[in-house]
Amino acid sequence: MTTEKIPYKIYLEEHEMPTHYYNLRADMKKKPAPLLNPGTGQPLTFEEMQPIFCDELIKQELDDETQNVPIPQEIRDFYKMYRPSPLVRAYCLEERLDTPAKIYYKFEGNNTSGSHKLNSAIAQAYYAKQQGLKGITTETGAGQWGTALSMACSYFQLDCKVYMVKVSYEQKPFRREVMRTYGASITPSPSDTTNIGRKILEEFPGTTGSLGCAISEAVEVATTNEGYRYVLGSVLNQVLLHQSIIGLETKTAMDKYGIKPDMIIGSAGGGSNLGGLIAPFMGEKLRGEADYQIIAVEPASCPSFTRGKYVYDFADTGKVCPLAKMYTLGSGYIPAPNHAGGLRYHGMSPILSEIYDQGLMEARAVAQTDVFEAAEEFARVEGILPAPESAHAIKVAIDEAKKCKETGEEKTIVFGLTGTGYFDLVAYQKYNDGVMDDYVPTDEEIAASLATVPQIG
Amino acid sequence: MTTEKIPYKIYLEEHEMPTHYYNLRADMKKKPAPLLNPGTGQPLTFEEMQPIFCDELIKQELDDETQNVPIPQEIRDFYKMYRPSPLVRAYCLEERLDTPAKIYYKFEGNNTSGSHKLNSAIAQAYYAKQQGLKGITTETGAGQWGTALSMACSYFQLDCKVYMVKVSYEQKPFRREVMRTYGASITPSPSDTTNIGRKILEEFPGTTGSLGCAISEAVEVATTNEGYRYVLGSVLNQVLLHQSIIGLETKTAMDKYGIKPDMIIGSAGGGSNLGGLIAPFMGEKLRGEADYQIIAVEPASCPSFTRGKYVYDFADTGKVCPLAKMYTLGSGYIPAPNHAGGLRYHGMSPILSEIYDQGLMEARAVAQTDVFEAAEEFARVEGILPAPESAHAIKVAIDEAKKCKETGEEKTIVFGLTGTGYFDLVAYQKYNDGVMDDYVPTDEEIAASLATVPQIG
Repeated sequence: MTTEKIPYKIYLEEHEMPTHYYNLRADMKKKPAPLLNPGTGQPLTFEEMQPIFCDELIKQELDDETQNVPIPQEIRDFYKMYRPSPLVRAYCLEERLDTPAKIYYKFEGNNTSGSHKLNSAIAQAYYAKQQGLKGITTETGAGQWGTALSMACSYFQLDCKVYMVKVSYEQKPFRREVMRTYGASITPSPSDTTNIGRKILEEFPGTTGSLGCAISEAVEVATTNEGYRYVLGSVLNQVLLHQSIIGLETKTAMDKYGIKPDMIIGSAGGGSNLGGLIAPFMGEKLRGEADYQIIAVEPASCPSFTRGKYVYDFADTGKVCPLAKMYTLGSGYIPAPNHAGGLRYHGMSPILSEIYDQGLMEARAVAQTDVFEAAEEFARVEGILPAPESAHAIKVAIDEAKKCKETGEEKTIVFGLTGTGYFDLVAYQKYNDGVMDDYVPTDEEIAASLATVPQIG
Repeated sequence: MTTEKIPYKIYLEEHEMPTHYYNLRADMKKKPAPLLNPGTGQPLTFEEMQPIFCDELIKQELDDETQNVPIPQEIRDFYKMYRPSPLVRAYCLEERLDTPAKIYYKFEGNNTSGSHKLNSAIAQAYYAKQQGLKGITTETGAGQWGTALSMACSYFQLDCKVYMVKVSYEQKPFRREVMRTYGASITPSPSDTTNIGRKILEEFPGTTGSLGCAISEAVEVATTNEGYRYVLGSVLNQVLLHQSIIGLETKTAMDKYGIKPDMIIGSAGGGSNLGGLIAPFMGEKLRGEADYQIIAVEPASCPSFTRGKYVYDFADTGKVCPLAKMYTLGSGYIPAPNHAGGLRYHGMSPILSEIYDQGLMEARAVAQTDVFEAAEEFARVEGILPAPESAHAIKVAIDEAKKCKETGEEKTIVFGLTGTGYFDLVAYQKYNDGVMDDYVPTDEEIAASLATVPQIG
């Protein structure tokens, strides 16, 4: 433990970087529910997943027992190019808020994908390469995951086929160009390159696409082309496993300076960033070694935790994927246009859903305009322009720091700053122009969507 | 000196960060030529500059003697938020090139302005605040400088008025929104808010503006509004002084690991990044303590060093600014459309011009398409998507590393990676689509432009 003044940014040395991922499931007494085959209603087996996913990733998906999973050297070498990410002491924000709270954030935006997504993308590309595959397929909406996967595939010289929701493909040409620069092929979805795409185009000629449709196309291409598999950037157990690097680095950095957080805050969409950030802390909590207040923050327009149900549901809108037990708003739920595209998923990671159900974590839903107000306040003192997704955590961190000012408590607050907002300036413009709205679904709308959830489990 | 293996990224500890700027002029036997008053042809005095610039910055501009200038604590605190910037060992690039060369780059893009510009912006904003000013004015073309200054002003709660070349204002709405998010007011230039702007609009109603015109408007607003001054982001001695932080950090990091560079490479537009990067190394060279090969890289479309003349010329197209002795293509030179907007300046920093004239530095001009090819090669192995400006240095670093492969020499190459290309994706798209051109001016065009240079000095 170092006793010097805590620096603005804590960087780990290379030799202090994690050598193993931490598998939170190993410490959970009640495990998250398994994925089910929608045809049989039975847990999916390794063999059933093999045509779709890479072998090693299926093993990780199914492994509820191994606590520490070694990170292969090739992945660790790639991590050294953009990690460790800094744990930042927000001295300037504290001063502006005039709060006794001590605020830290783990900043994952210092890489070209602009977010934490690269942590799992490089692992998934590595395992595909190890298996001798030619390439991988995926879908992308806002484009962060697609960018991360393009970067990872270009590093391992794997082919990368990205199905991008057509409306995003047209409205976010710059995201598309970044992926092309990394050598990926980007197809607007629905497309005439797949059976499902052609069928959808025939039925709905003017459609601008959906994530569900893009998933269906990416899965079809993976399963019908020799040497290809499909990969996914959030929700799955394997993704949370890879993202544990965020929490492990955070904990090592804090331990080094003898800092113990009182509160850990993260934005929650599919749950991969939050699950990664809290993993080692939640592990201590599960083992009874320490206690932390943990808060998931979601948009009020897509409130899976705070207004959803904990049941089996389809993982995708198109209902081609397995069933997952999770907090869900129903796979047909269409959130109001919200600029945090990464948080518009109808469900939530099964691991986090089980944790939340056990009462080990809180959740809060916040309105879009409040989120951008917090984003701007943060940007002006801390310099970094946050992604709208990340700003959900900022909003609650600022709220809590203000409470500390009222009560005089010197709480230590840590939040995850998952990425940068350079590709979200249409949203900032709406906020700057005062024309952003804050639609919140009615109880009737949520009930109607939940009525479509299959009756299983 | 540490003997462990050199890490991928060398970060300095906070206590190792520079406490003083280094003023290269103090070690130059023949000093750079002073700025001249275009009316009198005499060196500009402190008093003549006072209505336009902040007092402390004028002192820095005129000070050829003080070797080490203390960095005020407030500026050092701000630097701690985004500095030290990493000195990266390009292990992956070396492997891909199969070169015995050891390649390092100093990466200045990890802040929201996306470039090194913030280093001087925060210093200039600080001195304006210290002087009790209400605000500052500036012009911006591509927008990096305007963004950096907006961030700096928001931190010190100063008003910031940016005149943005109209065509950029319209074509780069996202840059504009970043500045607005930081609270700056952005006016497309020419505008009806100034006399000079109204005059130009009357004469040329359809004009899309120019940097020269934006400078004129920003200077008019600064000199006609109580409590305002004008600031500039490159070329000036004071800016190179602030940017010396880049070179000082680089040298400290290399010394720590006992690394001695053979070659230092930087992109050159107005010269602030290159001047900052090489400052302490050039100091050693001037004092006879060490020798380094130093290479300035400029676009073939705007070749001030390689095809310009070393004479007194106007610093701006509108001829309202002082005369500077520098390598210039003539203040009326209009470079062919090149996507490295930051390198399209007709002249070059007086300090670097004098250094180059003394034969202490080489210069190379490179074609745009070659630059983007290098940018893409770099991005795919090192992860970072570089700004087109920065990629000029990458191009020459890769060329030199390939030469080392042929000769078997284990040279140590350092280059400046000044920024990221997230706002340059229109350019990457042109490159990806194969429709980028490489216009190089004819000798006749350059001669015609140089004929307009005033006959002074």
